Amino acid sequence: MSHLSSINPSNTFTTPSRATTKASTLHPLAALTPDELTTISRVVKSYNASKTCLFRRCLLVEPPKALVVPYLQAELSGAPLPPVPTRRGQALFYFEGEQDFMEALVDITRGTLLGQRILPGEHGPGDDDEVLEIGAKALASPIVQAELERLQLPQGCEVIPEPWPYGSDDTPTPTRLSQVWFFLNYAERKDHPSSNFYAHPLDFSCVVDIATMEVVRIDRMPTDGGIEVSTDPNARFRPNPDCEYAPELLAEGVRKDLKPLHISQPEGVSFTIADDGETVKWQKWEFRVCFDVREGMILRNVKYDGRPIFYRLALSEMTVPYGDPRAPVHRKSAFDLGECGAGQTANNLQLGCDCLGVIHYFDGMGTSADGRPVKIPHAICIHEQDAGLGWKHTNIRTGRADVTRARELVFQLIVTVGNYEYALYFVFDTAATLHYEIRATGIMSVTPADPSADFSETAFGTVVADGVFAPHHQHLFNLRIDPAIDGYDGSVVTYDDVYPMKRDERNPHGVGFEVKSTKVENESAFNLDWTTNRVVKMVNPNKRNKFSGKPVGFKIMAPPTQLGLADPTSMHNIRGEFVNNHVHVTKYADNELWGSGEHLWQSRGGRGGCRTWAERGRKLENDSVVWFTLGFTHATRSEDWPVMPSEHFRMSFKPVGFFEQNPALDVPPSKQHVNQSRYAFPDQEAPIKPCCHL
Amino acid sequence: MSHLSSINPSNTFTTPSRATTKASTLHPLAALTPDELTTISRVVKSYNASKTCLFRRCLLVEPPKALVVPYLQAELSGAPLPPVPTRRGQALFYFEGEQDFMEALVDITRGTLLGQRILPGEHGPGDDDEVLEIGAKALASPIVQAELERLQLPQGCEVIPEPWPYGSDDTPTPTRLSQVWFFLNYAERKDHPSSNFYAHPLDFSCVVDIATMEVVRIDRMPTDGGIEVSTDPNARFRPNPDCEYAPELLAEGVRKDLKPLHISQPEGVSFTIADDGETVKWQKWEFRVCFDVREGMILRNVKYDGRPIFYRLALSEMTVPYGDPRAPVHRKSAFDLGECGAGQTANNLQLGCDCLGVIHYFDGMGTSADGRPVKIPHAICIHEQDAGLGWKHTNIRTGRADVTRARELVFQLIVTVGNYEYALYFVFDTAATLHYEIRATGIMSVTPADPSADFSETAFGTVVADGVFAPHHQHLFNLRIDPAIDGYDGSVVTYDDVYPMKRDERNPHGVGFEVKSTKVENESAFNLDWTTNRVVKMVNPNKRNKFSGKPVGFKIMAPPTQLGLADPTSMHNIRGEFVNNHVHVTKYADNELWGSGEHLWQSRGGRGGCRTWAERGRKLENDSVVWFTLGFTHATRSEDWPVMPSEHFRMSFKPVGFFEQNPALDVPPSKQHVNQSRYAFPDQEAPIKPCCHL
Repeated sequence: MSHLSSINPSNTFTTPSRATTKASTLHPLAALTPDELTTISRVVKSYNASKTCLFRRCLLVEPPKALVVPYLQAELSGAPLPPVPTRRGQALFYFEGEQDFMEALVDITRGTLLGQRILPGEHGPGDDDEVLEIGAKALASPIVQAELERLQLPQGCEVIPEPWPYGSDDTPTPTRLSQVWFFLNYAERKDHPSSNFYAHPLDFSCVVDIATMEVVRIDRMPTDGGIEVSTDPNARFRPNPDCEYAPELLAEGVRKDLKPLHISQPEGVSFTIADDGETVKWQKWEFRVCFDVREGMILRNVKYDGRPIFYRLALSEMTVPYGDPRAPVHRKSAFDLGECGAGQTANNLQLGCDCLGVIHYFDGMGTSADGRPVKIPHAICIHEQDAGLGWKHTNIRTGRADVTRARELVFQLIVTVGNYEYALYFVFDTAATLHYEIRATGIMSVTPADPSADFSETAFGTVVADGVFAPHHQHLFNLRIDPAIDGYDGSVVTYDDVYPMKRDERNPHGVGFEVKSTKVENESAFNLDWTTNRVVKMVNPNKRNKFSGKPVGFKIMAPPTQLGLADPTSMHNIRGEFVNNHVHVTKYADNELWGSGEHLWQSRGGRGGCRTWAERGRKLENDSVVWFTLGFTHATRSEDWPVMPSEHFRMSFKPVGFFEQNPALDVPPSKQHVNQSRYAFPDQEAPIKPCCHL
Repeated sequence: MSHLSSINPSNTFTTPSRATTKASTLHPLAALTPDELTTISRVVKSYNASKTCLFRRCLLVEPPKALVVPYLQAELSGAPLPPVPTRRGQALFYFEGEQDFMEALVDITRGTLLGQRILPGEHGPGDDDEVLEIGAKALASPIVQAELERLQLPQGCEVIPEPWPYGSDDTPTPTRLSQVWFFLNYAERKDHPSSNFYAHPLDFSCVVDIATMEVVRIDRMPTDGGIEVSTDPNARFRPNPDCEYAPELLAEGVRKDLKPLHISQPEGVSFTIADDGETVKWQKWEFRVCFDVREGMILRNVKYDGRPIFYRLALSEMTVPYGDPRAPVHRKSAFDLGECGAGQTANNLQLGCDCLGVIHYFDGMGTSADGRPVKIPHAICIHEQDAGLGWKHTNIRTGRADVTRARELVFQLIVTVGNYEYALYFVFDTAATLHYEIRATGIMSVTPADPSADFSETAFGTVVADGVFAPHHQHLFNLRIDPAIDGYDGSVVTYDDVYPMKRDERNPHGVGFEVKSTKVENESAFNLDWTTNRVVKMVNPNKRNKFSGKPVGFKIMAPPTQLGLADPTSMHNIRGEFVNNHVHVTKYADNELWGSGEHLWQSRGGRGGCRTWAERGRKLENDSVVWFTLGFTHATRSEDWPVMPSEHFRMSFKPVGFFEQNPALDVPPSKQHVNQSRYAFPDQEAPIKPCCHL
């Protein structure tokens, strides 16, 4: 969000409501309350009373960090708290029937409008309701009906429209569009709530102008293994077998021999949640976990044992570019945060289904199109889990073993974006490490595969079932990391590489190797290099480890990520912004939060994002923000169909010289009288030589 | 093991014992029984009746694969089983007081010696008993006592000798040596069974000739941050603070707020173990898990749903080269399988301490120096664990969610090798993926750090505590993978890379990318490349996926591994064999089992290992064996001291086109009536909108 047009002073609300009174008592970093959301939409609607506002998103505008830090520092030192900075909100909306995408900034504390403007050339995000409406309108359109007629579909079947963001290609598109894929349910399955219509992709898509809900074009889909797309006016639907995932639709049923596994905590959970509903304390960790319709979960003011580590940490964007170059598949490149929102599309998690053990749920809060706050029940779940062996050592001279287990505190949010699911996790552990984990599951986006066609030379996807082609694609995620390593006075980014020492008189036997540390001096981007074991660190240059003398820090450990494969000149790459480097480092700015920029629907680049910001190359002055890209290239497998076993990847923030010794040293020893484990079979004896300290 | 010298026919035992009778009923791939171990040592002792044999290891010599495969194929097809091939064992031993390292091969079935020979230039592995004896002898030696006197140690302290394999450097060493480090316990701590003497490293080491138990040399240790090693004859011990890990020795005690977490399986476990004590069945998996003193755990004949995947899978070797180039640290490069044995050093796991939930334990079986079978109680534990979200999809039109959880079956073996611990895991999951996980924990190997010295420019290690320097090092592991992808008729290795397509008329928008598959035609070595997302696959060229037409296969997914940093001309690299490529592919051979060769104690290379075998370059004919290297470079942190929070890494074998659909499709839905989860806090309501299919 950049600066707004000047405000019309007549729109100042002079009588604060109850909601705004309450707001002033909130913590500066608290998520928006329902009352605050109401205030935002009320102010905007009041200012625009002659029109009907269709709200797309209402978001918290965090107070400037420069105002928040003194507050947090006073919290740390126990000094009197400074006044809470003004609470502000942003509304993104349309006027009914109009094309212009609108932004308003609201002073929630005072209940006043700070500014409002048109966002020229930008388009607003979608949501489930809009998706369903686009689909219904597309299906009803005569030109879509004509295509369905051409196909001579089986009797009684149901056609399912699946609207997507239009994406972008080399052709500019000034109006807000959706591209709609079509799938089919056979007659006998169409009433089943989990029938897998994706198993029957149709051979055309259409393009809808969202403002008018008109179908503006039909695109024929590729159906064979080649590059040419058939336009045969007589192409018919080719029936192919169902491929279901719902347990009651499986021909063989479900396996019967998986025995229940229960997790219980007889003395209750080890975490507490403050009355603010956001501040969590667990095992020396303390932080705010805030729901957000765009980012899903935001961690704010993460501390360990009273020492700050992160000012803010959240997924900034994700993109899923597809490798099938054929129109219209070439436009498949979802940006699920900017286009839909990880909070907006959050599942309502269910006890005992999505989570196992002893669970707490956070509700999320969004905004309806008409501006009412809408609860998203059970959007985030939180639980503890055992994480296996923590640390262990056996003194072989005395036979005594000391062993601890690792414990984790897990925050889970699962999003459904059309066909696909992402489960997103923040995981805190008892060794002062914070992990970010992603699981990718759901149903792959597929196109029709002519059973008579030759796919043997097709290398951009896989025929995963009769009649179904799954293009290869990438899942690339970007985390925005705003560090506060042992203080809010700013952090420096360095990276360490490990190099062999030359074989010479310093290293006569040729075994030596050394760590070389490089400071990131200017805004820039760089890549990881696994051949040098490159590790990114965030350090506080003003605090030193007592023993090593090196600055205290946290390092980022991540799985290997193949960067964006799209051509540098392609729209996938241009608008991606974070896809062609693992790491971007920029100077902190309050309004630079999202790796691919703010408004992604049909974005065409050139409006900011971490690449653009990193390219400024300005000198960093203990004010570094790290943008970290991770993900994977998904070469599709038949094993991923009809629903994909979750693919995991986890990155970790680990202390390095931050502590003077193992932070898990005081985890209590793992003892049977606490753990209450059992032998699996009655004939098992106790061990002959006790090895564990009891 | 290569060929043996011809046998003296007079050593044939003609009367089979009860043990050998029993042996003939064993499965060809069964681990050695106690009776069989007794037979091996009895045959060897009888042949060498005039001397005292000191056994180092007695190992199963698997029958030739060519004889076993018809047996396994008959098992698969239900045909009559062919005769069980002769059971054979290998004994590695010394004659008391002699230097020659001996090998004997025994026909266990007949109770006969097949051959015996001296292994010239090779040295046998060590064990805990030997380590303790070397230490005691070293400590008693006058020249060690003279060094201790020089140090003017604190009154009443205890000196702890820590023998290591000598390693190798550029100077040949014909006799079997140990290098011994020395540490100190202060008087007030020396009686505590977990006192951390490693916190007080002394400034010298000694070298012991193991055969004579004589100290042959004193080496002074580096104590500052530079390259020169002090030989100051007046150097004194510099007292430094204790740094303990035992809970009762922690000044602040243990944290009190970690609540118990229990895992129970009220209907019992989902796995079964056959009467043979080795064959495990769980969730369509079936395999033998065999204890072995060298390799720890060996998986044999791994099948899923009746289809073979691996003939044999085991850790083949590991090495820990240190990056500190200064003598004598330059010789630190442990080969913990070949030198000590992952089974030999296995912990006796304890219910509720090392394992949580419902556990079964396997005992291991080794051999004492005098040839008796020795039980290693509870060497391997096995349990099920929940692994979070399996797969999920929500139909946003109907609101119905289908969700499963992932379950894992975990085999754990923990080894203690002096100061350090490795926890080794085979993990099977419900999506037909097999994982190999390693956790590194225990106490880092350290050297003394002069508190007055300057370490600010020292880049090959870290001062982790007052007086303690921890050199950087690498942990490199090698898995030997003998695939049997959907049949025992042999497997082919390929690797896939993902490349961008050129922007041209096939790819007009520049978004396309393609997978290129390369077949490994000849014995060779290559590296992974994360920039091309290189994935190694093992495929069966004779079986094709029904939909893709591609060979059925399994792929290897692995974390990034920095390869060996030691100079190519260095002994660390030469004897490492597997350390300078991620992947070696060789033609199957019955006697090629260990990536760095068979006998590692003071090995100097040149006697086989996966690099040597890969360099043969012979044409592969569906007989590929894969040697996979993984590990990490450990740049030491103060957080790893005094005991290291376990560092995890996990590689995975995932089906790719092996199945026609998601193999976890029939995992039963995750349901609360089965899972019995609980709300963490009483005020939590049920969700408003049910999203889970119940």
